[in-house]
Amino acid sequence: MKNTIYKKSLALHKKYRGKIEIISKVPIKNKNDLALVYTPGVAQVSIEINKNPKLVYNYTNKSNMVGIISDGSAVLGLGNIGPYAAIPVMEGKAILLKKFAKIDTFPICINTQNTQEIINFVKNLEPVFGAIMLEDISAPRCFEIEKILQKELPIPVMHDDQHGAATVVLAGLINALKLRAKIKHTISISKKVKENASSLQVSVINNESKAANIIINGAGAAGIAIAKLLLAYGFKNLIICDSQGAIYLERNNLSEESPSLTPHKKEIARMTNQKNIPGNIQGKLVDIIKNTDVFIGVSGPKLLTKEMVQSMAKNPIIFALANPEPEIMPEIAKRAGAFIVATGRSDFPNQINNSLVFPGLFRGALDNKIKQFNQKIFIRVAETLAKIVKNPTPNKILPDPFDPKIVEAIKKVVR
Amino acid sequence: MKNTIYKKSLALHKKYRGKIEIISKVPIKNKNDLALVYTPGVAQVSIEINKNPKLVYNYTNKSNMVGIISDGSAVLGLGNIGPYAAIPVMEGKAILLKKFAKIDTFPICINTQNTQEIINFVKNLEPVFGAIMLEDISAPRCFEIEKILQKELPIPVMHDDQHGAATVVLAGLINALKLRAKIKHTISISKKVKENASSLQVSVINNESKAANIIINGAGAAGIAIAKLLLAYGFKNLIICDSQGAIYLERNNLSEESPSLTPHKKEIARMTNQKNIPGNIQGKLVDIIKNTDVFIGVSGPKLLTKEMVQSMAKNPIIFALANPEPEIMPEIAKRAGAFIVATGRSDFPNQINNSLVFPGLFRGALDNKIKQFNQKIFIRVAETLAKIVKNPTPNKILPDPFDPKIVEAIKKVVR
Repeated sequence: MKNTIYKKSLALHKKYRGKIEIISKVPIKNKNDLALVYTPGVAQVSIEINKNPKLVYNYTNKSNMVGIISDGSAVLGLGNIGPYAAIPVMEGKAILLKKFAKIDTFPICINTQNTQEIINFVKNLEPVFGAIMLEDISAPRCFEIEKILQKELPIPVMHDDQHGAATVVLAGLINALKLRAKIKHTISISKKVKENASSLQVSVINNESKAANIIINGAGAAGIAIAKLLLAYGFKNLIICDSQGAIYLERNNLSEESPSLTPHKKEIARMTNQKNIPGNIQGKLVDIIKNTDVFIGVSGPKLLTKEMVQSMAKNPIIFALANPEPEIMPEIAKRAGAFIVATGRSDFPNQINNSLVFPGLFRGALDNKIKQFNQKIFIRVAETLAKIVKNPTPNKILPDPFDPKIVEAIKKVVR
Repeated sequence: MKNTIYKKSLALHKKYRGKIEIISKVPIKNKNDLALVYTPGVAQVSIEINKNPKLVYNYTNKSNMVGIISDGSAVLGLGNIGPYAAIPVMEGKAILLKKFAKIDTFPICINTQNTQEIINFVKNLEPVFGAIMLEDISAPRCFEIEKILQKELPIPVMHDDQHGAATVVLAGLINALKLRAKIKHTISISKKVKENASSLQVSVINNESKAANIIINGAGAAGIAIAKLLLAYGFKNLIICDSQGAIYLERNNLSEESPSLTPHKKEIARMTNQKNIPGNIQGKLVDIIKNTDVFIGVSGPKLLTKEMVQSMAKNPIIFALANPEPEIMPEIAKRAGAFIVATGRSDFPNQINNSLVFPGLFRGALDNKIKQFNQKIFIRVAETLAKIVKNPTPNKILPDPFDPKIVEAIKKVVR
């Protein structure tokens, strides 16, 4: 199955030689048309923008143009494959923005992985874009790059690996935990007075949900952003793992190059793994996953075993989001007792993929002319996305990416 | 007339909000399609390019993608209007490349006018483009930027204001001088043996053409490149003028900031204005234009008067190429005795505009995978473009831009 998709994808890319095409949206049929779209007519348009720079939004593509910028340092689950190999992924994201949100998007993979050079590059690029989507830039550089660009650019900037991922995970988690709590309470509620059941159920479920024990495996851009957004939403019991196990404040890293936690891991250690203070939880994933309710993997292939799933609390929720190879294949997780399994892929049920979020986020950012993205926007978008599925089931916690309601609903809450 | 075009152009730009659109050229109709164009299928494409970077030309848009880069420092005849106001012009060039040469082109107007920053920017941008067209960057920075990028980038780079302009001027001049010489010799040749007339005529005309006295008014990017290409082609008698008059080696500039000629003007002074050595021609345009055969204006509006045209040799050739307002309006030049008048605009006869050249140049550069552009290529392209008009007339020295033969013919000689 996987090999078939890979072969077909190679053939498709070879046939079309890339996935985007740049066309004219104005007619050019004769010399009269030329005189309007080019010299001399175009000169007057330039003169007007020179007099009033805001008119660039009226007379050029800026109002509907998003730039995707990647340095190819953290592409899918493939790691630092560089700018050339990153291009097919960025072209893919560009055509999704067009397909789902009618946004013109140009993907740029750049020849540097130097933080300051990337910042300078994007600042110089700003005139032609209405918003910037940073993509597949590795941690910790991505945090600084996004922070500085958000501060210094007059257009919205978002690192999708952080906030696209965090937003779609929160949306999926809201519905997954609701489903799980419903199952648990269905029996007890049936004994109570029926007319009170519904509202009681909602508040019980909400409180229980936010008390869930959650492991996030992976402390890169996505893992850290997911942790921050879940905390901002109200979840209390989070532990983040990296390849050495649970992150806690006093942990020393074992490698000689980085003897202590990086600043970003320290920051997240101050916010998570607080349940049992004093005495934060320590250990490898295999140890600390016991009795937890939720596993969120943004790490790498095959890092979650069926034994680990079996050691979790009853009816565990597994988000195995590593791309293209998830932490555990869905059928294995299901057989090991998982109640809900989601991956980042479109060829399994429950796709938890940024592509459910970034088209609507950027459509809203452009339409509503927001100054910058923030956590409140991401939470509203996650809640909106979760609500689109009227009756979630374990095999459908989020809408189908082709559902046109997604972008329509999300764009309205990006304010 | 002019005002009508300006009004219509503003209305058109407002209606469409920019002129380019970025679309998908692959189908995305269902989840199966998604799995091929995006995750997981796309991962295999990235893996293959990572193994063999040359495959970027097979699997991505690079093989048909040109980047237009401008800093907005020398746009049309409007001067340094900055990156925002330059966007409509660059979008116009982008859609011409698509219309005439089926090239996907993305225009980027950048937020810096610093030479080194522009060089760094384009180097970082290289992965996604098959070739780079520099546009509307002012002299002398444009010379250094192009030179360094041509040396350091693995893809062809061309500053269109220099070489696009020079190539199309040479093409127009070849046909214009041929027509002018034919008129002069028609009487004398008619007296000779008829069977020898044709071949005699060609060689006489060619020799006479290259001896023509030519004034180039404007010593910016276009003026200097035109001079160099005309010299490389074989013209001998050239004088370049800037706003202070004829450029000659010992001339001092009058301004305090630049007391002597810039390096690029010095270089061109060594190559031109050599006819009367010792004692190069000095003076203002109004003085030195007397008895010359050809005026090539790449300067600004209304710099050529009817009196100046009247002072030229019989049947003068006037290329008034300043955009959007030419150095002299065609009807005024004609009434003053001009034999052939050309402008850069599409709303007059004889459009001498880069747009006749750059689509074919880049189509050829991409198709034939040339390493870099050079003067030999530009001369071949100019000769090819001139030959497309089988029977030139004073009102048609170059083909109509919509003639599909142009790109077909030019692309073959870009080698």
